[in-house]
Parts: sequence; structure tokens; C-alpha cells
Amino acid sequence: MPTIAEKIFARASGKGKVEAGDIVMADIDIAMIHDLTGPLAVESFNKIGTGKVWDSSKIVIPFDHQVPADSLDSANNHILMRKFVKEQNIENFYDVKEGVCHQVLPEKGHVIPGTVIVGADSHTCTYGALGAFATGIGSTDMAMVLSTGQLWFKVPETIRFEIKGELKENTSPKDLILNIIGQVGADGATYKSCEFAGETISNMNVSGRMVLSNMAIEMGGKTGLIEPDKRTYDYLKGRVSGENKNRLRAFIEKSNLKTDLDSTSLEIIDMDVSELEPQIACPHNVDNVKPASELSDVEIDQVFIGSCTNGRIEDLRDAAKILKGNQINSNLRMLVIPASKEVYLKGLDEGLIKIFVEAGALVSAPCCGPCLGGHTGLIGSDEVSLSTSNRNFKGRQGSPEGEVYLSSAKVAAQSAIEGKIAIPK
Amino acid sequence: MPTIAEKIFARASGKGKVEAGDIVMADIDIAMIHDLTGPLAVESFNKIGTGKVWDSSKIVIPFDHQVPADSLDSANNHILMRKFVKEQNIENFYDVKEGVCHQVLPEKGHVIPGTVIVGADSHTCTYGALGAFATGIGSTDMAMVLSTGQLWFKVPETIRFEIKGELKENTSPKDLILNIIGQVGADGATYKSCEFAGETISNMNVSGRMVLSNMAIEMGGKTGLIEPDKRTYDYLKGRVSGENKNRLRAFIEKSNLKTDLDSTSLEIIDMDVSELEPQIACPHNVDNVKPASELSDVEIDQVFIGSCTNGRIEDLRDAAKILKGNQINSNLRMLVIPASKEVYLKGLDEGLIKIFVEAGALVSAPCCGPCLGGHTGLIGSDEVSLSTSNRNFKGRQGSPEGEVYLSSAKVAAQSAIEGKIAIPK
Repeated sequence: MPTIAEKIFARASGKGKVEAGDIVMADIDIAMIHDLTGPLAVESFNKIGTGKVWDSSKIVIPFDHQVPADSLDSANNHILMRKFVKEQNIENFYDVKEGVCHQVLPEKGHVIPGTVIVGADSHTCTYGALGAFATGIGSTDMAMVLSTGQLWFKVPETIRFEIKGELKENTSPKDLILNIIGQVGADGATYKSCEFAGETISNMNVSGRMVLSNMAIEMGGKTGLIEPDKRTYDYLKGRVSGENKNRLRAFIEKSNLKTDLDSTSLEIIDMDVSELEPQIACPHNVDNVKPASELSDVEIDQVFIGSCTNGRIEDLRDAAKILKGNQINSNLRMLVIPASKEVYLKGLDEGLIKIFVEAGALVSAPCCGPCLGGHTGLIGSDEVSLSTSNRNFKGRQGSPEGEVYLSSAKVAAQSAIEGKIAIPK
Repeated sequence: MPTIAEKIFARASGKGKVEAGDIVMADIDIAMIHDLTGPLAVESFNKIGTGKVWDSSKIVIPFDHQVPADSLDSANNHILMRKFVKEQNIENFYDVKEGVCHQVLPEKGHVIPGTVIVGADSHTCTYGALGAFATGIGSTDMAMVLSTGQLWFKVPETIRFEIKGELKENTSPKDLILNIIGQVGADGATYKSCEFAGETISNMNVSGRMVLSNMAIEMGGKTGLIEPDKRTYDYLKGRVSGENKNRLRAFIEKSNLKTDLDSTSLEIIDMDVSELEPQIACPHNVDNVKPASELSDVEIDQVFIGSCTNGRIEDLRDAAKILKGNQINSNLRMLVIPASKEVYLKGLDEGLIKIFVEAGALVSAPCCGPCLGGHTGLIGSDEVSLSTSNRNFKGRQGSPEGEVYLSSAKVAAQSAIEGKIAIPK
């Protein structure tokens, strides 16, 4: 009667059986550091003094937060990290050109169901959409992982969202996760393994599932797990290489990565999305969620479509369908930043990039963009951002006197045309 | 026997006849301020206290240097400028989406032969390629222009480069201007009206001419003039609107914007480009020019194709022809930033953007990029940039311990493949 989390930690700890609440030392399958958190982790790693990383084939390093380098500090951080990559013979290095870490790792086949993945980034939980126990850790913990390949965990309890019904045409998985967070609260799932299950999830593609898992951290979740299935396999089969090919095949042959519903460490929340309307997280908290229909007075200065939450090809398609043949409102600017090179190239092939540029949007090279408030597209005092990203606390996208609203790509595109928060017809 | 400069100032000063050395007060036809210099000009303008600008239809404001906003300061500068635009009813405002000022003003039909244009940006001389006397001025001078529509000038002497011969396949106008600057020196044409003339110029398209005029300032030139001709007219005729349509027609009907070669304020330098090889400006001065063939040992960390010098569709075509089907060297990163939305859209239609992304380059939305060392793509300590832009002094693109080499788009693309400075085959 274990949960997925318990099953994964039973294997990763070598104990055979664990229960929620147990403290275990787990073997790490993949460790991810990026250009922003990597230098801190490397600095701590150097202090530990093991010299070599535990397994260079299990470390993945994408550059995405400050690309292309936006300051002397970030340029020099990039140099430091490239040096580390060379010294440690790290093959899985994705320099500035590949895109946002949480899109790149799944795309490049580094996420295998049943594995334990840690990343020095809070949205590492995204990979749970493919059945990995994936979670964000601090750079000091990461230094221990780089040195030893292990990390301790308290096996988490599980909160399972059992979801039925079909999403309406003008909604998307983003509306679902915002609605969940609004109900549960920003700390409502603290340290829980969040699971998304039910017919709605079975019928949802991997991109949509990644939206849900991505934002598990926004209600405090340790990860955001989805039982792997044929969609998981179909997504990964052309992407994995080397040892991961065998691991993926093994998972398909005898997968038991399902939560037993009689588990004692499990809370189940039932939901029906059939009547769900477009949702918005309002300033300055991600759980301050309201129906978009109640916010039609909110004027917008900047619209951002992108990030590890909603910068995928499906988001670009959703937005382009609405923007095609239209111009964005002259009172705002719009940024579209595909989450990866793969997404960008698909967007080029499908003519979506052209639609955005013609509509008056800025399309930038794959990166985190304004999501983290670092450089590309900050908002100034008293400005309002409508963003498909995942956080809206004060100052997240620039000025602490600005406001950030979070929405789906559909709502963002319609609002870009109208200049105010608007629902797609 | 006047020069073009003397003819233009004779009209603009209302004196009928002026000579080099005369101090004149000239009527300004177009004043350009952008997001970086605009706030300083507006601040000084407010101190002068006229309240209203002299003529809102003659002011052009593009945002290009810090777009999308890269810091709180730039975001708030953008807000300040947008407020000024509204208060002063400035129609010719190009927010973040349109591109680099010196590409946008010609494209949008603001540059008419024979006019006087001042811009709060040193490369304003670019517009001389279309026969305007265009020059960069400081933000305080600009405040006086915004208030009064006039500015004093000393009518400059002229240095005329009389150029014959056909450029070789692996060279471009950039090689020509680098060669000229190398010969003349960074201060060799100080306060001169530089003219580019001769059969090579007659046969050169407007984009190529803009490369020459753009870099006139790099040898100290007050402007970089080219006698307007049918190519000028063909470039502008579909772009001008309103009053400018009549002015352009009038110019065609009775243009005398040619320099009389018996002028006493004229120095003529004859050149033949038939044997010109690809040129490079080496660190840390723009006049430290050497043949690219002598620099094949120089390893590169970053290649940048873009800027008001070489971010046009012809540059993108040059680069794409070389990069098609190739990958950039894994030891470097490459940025391609089209100079304007128009260039970007052409690049999309012609499949060039896809070639760049497939080759591993980052393609960003139109802006000045790393040229000014502000944000997008800075280099770190001891890094080497090969750039199609116009300046290479210490720290221009980031770290003062870095090095910047300047080249054509052709050399930049070939070098991006080889990892070292290389000449296209």
C-alpha cells in the first residue's frame, strides 16, 4: 500500500520498503545546476574538497537564467561554470543556446520515471510530470550531492488530486493548477508529494502535465508526481540515449509506479474541471486566485508568454491562434520567449513566430526571461504585468511597486489584444 | 562651388550661401532621442521650461538600447519617456518592438535628402547615406533643439572618398569602411563632413551605403554623406508619408545635392577596392585595422551579428549563406540580432532565422544587443568577441579585460564555424 513517493525512495535508499516520515539517504540519479545557482554549488563543492564529482554522467548543466550574459557578473559566472564543465568532463552541458532547464532536461531525455532528480532550482518538481521524484534543493545541499551522489530526505506524505471532467476550450492546465493552488493555499501542501491523477490527467499531454507538476512548489509541495503511462513513454522514447534507454524499457515492462489508494499516508482531493473558468493569480500571492471574468478592469503594461511553466509549443499555439491577424494593444508591450530551442524551431516551422512578430510582440531567444526579475523585460513602478509564469510576489518581475498577474497563454494573448485582462471568446 | 554640407546649411540657416568655417544657426528637420539618451534630454528640456516641444511632428523616439527593459532604472526610464510622448503628442514613437534607431528612422521614412537631422546618439551620421546632414549631439544640446527647433553648427569642411572598383565576393562595405578608418585614423576626419562617392558607391545598395555613413563618426567625422540618387529615391519612395512625400518628390525634380569638385573646402582621397581583402579592427581601437588573413590564430568566445552597422537583411543573408547546414563551433556562442522588426520579418520569410537557430545561434528581438555593453550578451574577463558592430574600445562589450574585434557579417559567420577568425572561402 505504498505511494509513488514511497516506492521511489524504497528503491533509491536501498531499503526495499520505506514509509512516509522515514528519514532516508537516497542515491541521486540526476543532479541539475544552472548558471545562476551553479556557481554557489561549485564554490561549496570546492570547499568540500573531493576534487572530482561523484559521477559526471549524472550531472546536467543548462544555462538559462542570465542568458545571454546580462552583466559582467553573469558573464564571469558563465566562464566559471564552463571551466567546471571542462574540468569535470560533464557531457550534459547545455550552453546559452538550448533553453530553460526544466524544458531542456525532459527534452534531452534526462528524466526517467522512478528516478530521483534534484536540481538547484525550485521548479525542479516539473519532472514529476514524467514520474520522477524531482525536487529543488539549495546550492549547499547540491554541493554534497556533487561530491557524494547522495542526499537525505524525509519520505513525504502524499496529497493526491483526483481530477475528472474535460477542460473547456478557453481554459488550459494552467487554469487547473491555479485553481488548485487557490483552494489549497500557498502553504497547503508543504513538504507533500503532490499527485495529479484521474481521467483529466490521463487524457492530458505531457506538456500540460508539466504545467501542473511545475507549480506544485507554489503550494509548498516537495514534488508534483504523475503516474507514468503510455503518454510518458511516447514522449521519452525518441529522446533517451545510453543507459536510459534500458531504464525506460524496464519501466514499461514492469512499472508499478502507481499509488496504492489504501495508503495510510495519502490524502485524496476530488475535483471536477468541467465548469472551470479561466483563472488568474492576483498580486501579490500565487494563491490569491480569482476568475478572470472578475478582473476585466485590470489594465496591463506588459504581457509575457514563456517560462518553465508556459513556454511550450502548445502555449505558443494557443497564443498564436488568438493573435493571428491581430495587433497587440498599443498601450502595452508583449514578450514571447519559447522555453527551448526545440520549441523555437517548432514555432518557426509552424509560422507561430511570424504571427507574434507581426502582431507586435518581441520574440526573444529561449531563456527564463522576466520571470525571475533578472533582466529581459522588467516592469517599472506601478506597472502591471500579465504573465504565464509561476510567481507573482512583490518585485518578482522588476519593481516592487509593480504588480504581476498570472494566467494561461490563452488569457495572456487575448488580454494583449484588448489591453486589459480578457477571456478568449 | 559648394559642397553638399554647404548647400544643406545654406538652406537650413536661411542664409542662401554659407562656407566651411561659418557659424550658422540651422533649422532642424528631425530630432531623434532614444530610451538611453532621451531621459537626459527630457530632464534638460524640462529645466528650460518652454513646456511644449517646438514641433511634435519632427521628433522621433525609438526604444532600442535597453529593450526589453534590463533593469529597474531602464524600466522607469521607459515609463518617463512614454509619459513624455503622450504629454507632447509625439506620433513618431517606436516602442520596444521596432528596432535600432538608425535602422528604424530610414525604414519609416523620416530621412529625406537635404534635411538636417540631429540625434542624441553618435551614429546618427548613418542617415547621411540617404543624403541628409545627420549628426549626433549631446543630450543638453538636444534639449535646446526640443525647445527651439534650432541648433548652431560650424559648417564643416569636407573629406571625400572617391572610390572605384568592385568589392570581392568575400568582402562587403564593412571591409571598405574599416580599411578607410585604418588609413585615416580614429581622429583623421575630425569635424569633417565625410563623403563617399565614386562608381563603387553608385553601384552600392542603400544598406551598404549605411554601413559606410554609420562609421564616419569612428574617424571623427561630423557626418557621412552620400549624394542621393535613384537608389536613394527607390529606397524611400514607399516609406515616406505626409509632407515628406512632397519633399522627396521635390528633391527628385531639382536635386543639386552634389559636391562641386572645385570647392576650396574639399579634400579628395582616391581609392580602389578591387584588391581589398577582408579587414578586421583589432583591440582596442577602431583604427587598429589589419587584414583578417593575418589573424587566423585569434580564438573567439562570442560572435555577434547585428547593430546599426551590420544588422540588416543583407548581413543576415551573408551570414546565413555561410552558416546554412553548419554548426557553430562548440567553444563559442553566437548572437544574431536583426536591426529591426522589418529585418526580422524578412529574415523569417527567407528562412534565415531558422538557419541561425539550427546552427546554434541565439536570435534575439531587435535591439542594440551587446554593442553598447549594456546587457544582452556581455563578455567576461579575458573573453574575445568578434562583432559586426562599430566600436571596440576596452569594455565596450562587457569586461575591460575582454577584447573586441570588428568585422563584416561574412567574416563573423565563417569565424563562428571555425572558432577562430576566418575568411569565407
